Amino acid sequence: MQITMLNEKAIRAVYTMKDAIADCKEAAKLYSAGQCSIPLRTNLNIPEHNGQSLYMYGYVPAVHALGVKIVSVYPDNIQKGLNSVPATMVLLDATTGTVSCLLDGTVLTRFRTGAIVGAATDILARKDSTVFALFGTGGQAMSQLEAVLTVRPIKYVKVYDVDFARAKEFAYQAEEIFGKQYDVEIRAVNATDEAVQNADIITAVTTATHAVFPGELVKTGAHINGVGSYRPDMAEIDEYIVSHAKVYVDTRNGAL
Amino acid sequence: MQITMLNEKAIRAVYTMKDAIADCKEAAKLYSAGQCSIPLRTNLNIPEHNGQSLYMYGYVPAVHALGVKIVSVYPDNIQKGLNSVPATMVLLDATTGTVSCLLDGTVLTRFRTGAIVGAATDILARKDSTVFALFGTGGQAMSQLEAVLTVRPIKYVKVYDVDFARAKEFAYQAEEIFGKQYDVEIRAVNATDEAVQNADIITAVTTATHAVFPGELVKTGAHINGVGSYRPDMAEIDEYIVSHAKVYVDTRNGAL
Repeated sequence: MQITMLNEKAIRAVYTMKDAIADCKEAAKLYSAGQCSIPLRTNLNIPEHNGQSLYMYGYVPAVHALGVKIVSVYPDNIQKGLNSVPATMVLLDATTGTVSCLLDGTVLTRFRTGAIVGAATDILARKDSTVFALFGTGGQAMSQLEAVLTVRPIKYVKVYDVDFARAKEFAYQAEEIFGKQYDVEIRAVNATDEAVQNADIITAVTTATHAVFPGELVKTGAHINGVGSYRPDMAEIDEYIVSHAKVYVDTRNGAL
Repeated sequence: MQITMLNEKAIRAVYTMKDAIADCKEAAKLYSAGQCSIPLRTNLNIPEHNGQSLYMYGYVPAVHALGVKIVSVYPDNIQKGLNSVPATMVLLDATTGTVSCLLDGTVLTRFRTGAIVGAATDILARKDSTVFALFGTGGQAMSQLEAVLTVRPIKYVKVYDVDFARAKEFAYQAEEIFGKQYDVEIRAVNATDEAVQNADIITAVTTATHAVFPGELVKTGAHINGVGSYRPDMAEIDEYIVSHAKVYVDTRNGAL
């Protein structure tokens, strides 16, 4: 049993958001071309611990990629000081069927959810976009921010959260991390209108069940990423936008 | 990422066939009582490498067991000097959903396939069984032998294989391993009739498509384990036995 173990530090030492965005473009291309074998994920309920254990596998011959991502959803982990969505990626050597590598799945999830939106932004947003509005400051917000900073010459970021103190804390941290590297100013704003006004790119990464900003105020030609809504009762984008914008989705089945 | 890795040596240092038989009895009990959550396995075809990659998960609340066994079937591995059925067991901590342990799945498979038959033999065979006939000397034969030696006071083992030289080699190796420990004599025989005659217990672990011994010759009261047949076109046990014996199966769905 010779299995390589890659934790977050090891992955970040060799892999960047720029790599992840390039890989997500390639993956989306292969997926759309029908070159990915991805069976339905399997879901084990763990009612005794208020949890779920999910198994998502895939095989992509073109890149010799074979494996399963094991993702658990355990809301009660937070009270134990643990990750509520622990994840591990198990890679197999496609030529021999042998388990070859384990990767920290949480960092991969963060890369991937940021990068697929970075890929969409790179393909769809105006090249000269300089103002970015970010709605939501949860666990995925930082990589969403990084993805947009990676693909466009953003100079000013407005961060909105229903909890203004949280938005301020996030903006402060984000500027510490990305301010110099991307020559960008990152500020919290206390009103959705203010966040939207003049934004070239808008990303919503929330669990909201109502639209998080008024569509009428969005600048013509702006690019909007709707990341959060993953249940039918969730909504981040209002009817005005949906009926006036060109809409692109990652996968039709996922979006419908 | 703190994950315990247990290879064959580490497992064998703390776990014996006797343990495995006790665990298989417990597992069969829990399974029959509907206390195991075991979704259908997932199968990924890897046609580029003439392989299959199988994912088998399960959750058993009573014993806090959660995990997935990853088993690949790559016949061409043999030409590369590799295991043609490499397997890895991934265990999760059921209380947190976190991957906690990787085990060599090949040794687990050997324990398990031997032990479930050992459990059946322990429950069903005559207590005073002393003569054992083993048909087949493939990768699973040694653990099948060990399982029967573990549960009954076998004094004499007759080993049959279509390739007599292979049977002799297997018998020699088996006596080296088990001869002293179980005070047993292990001999190859060159005729199926000779193997069956006077046997108290018979185990067939072959890929045969026709019956491997004549049922009429089986001693009254003997116990027979049919291990090999896993496809509808396979058969190890003849009609005489099936129509004259009490038949027990591990799972109805698997057997039908």
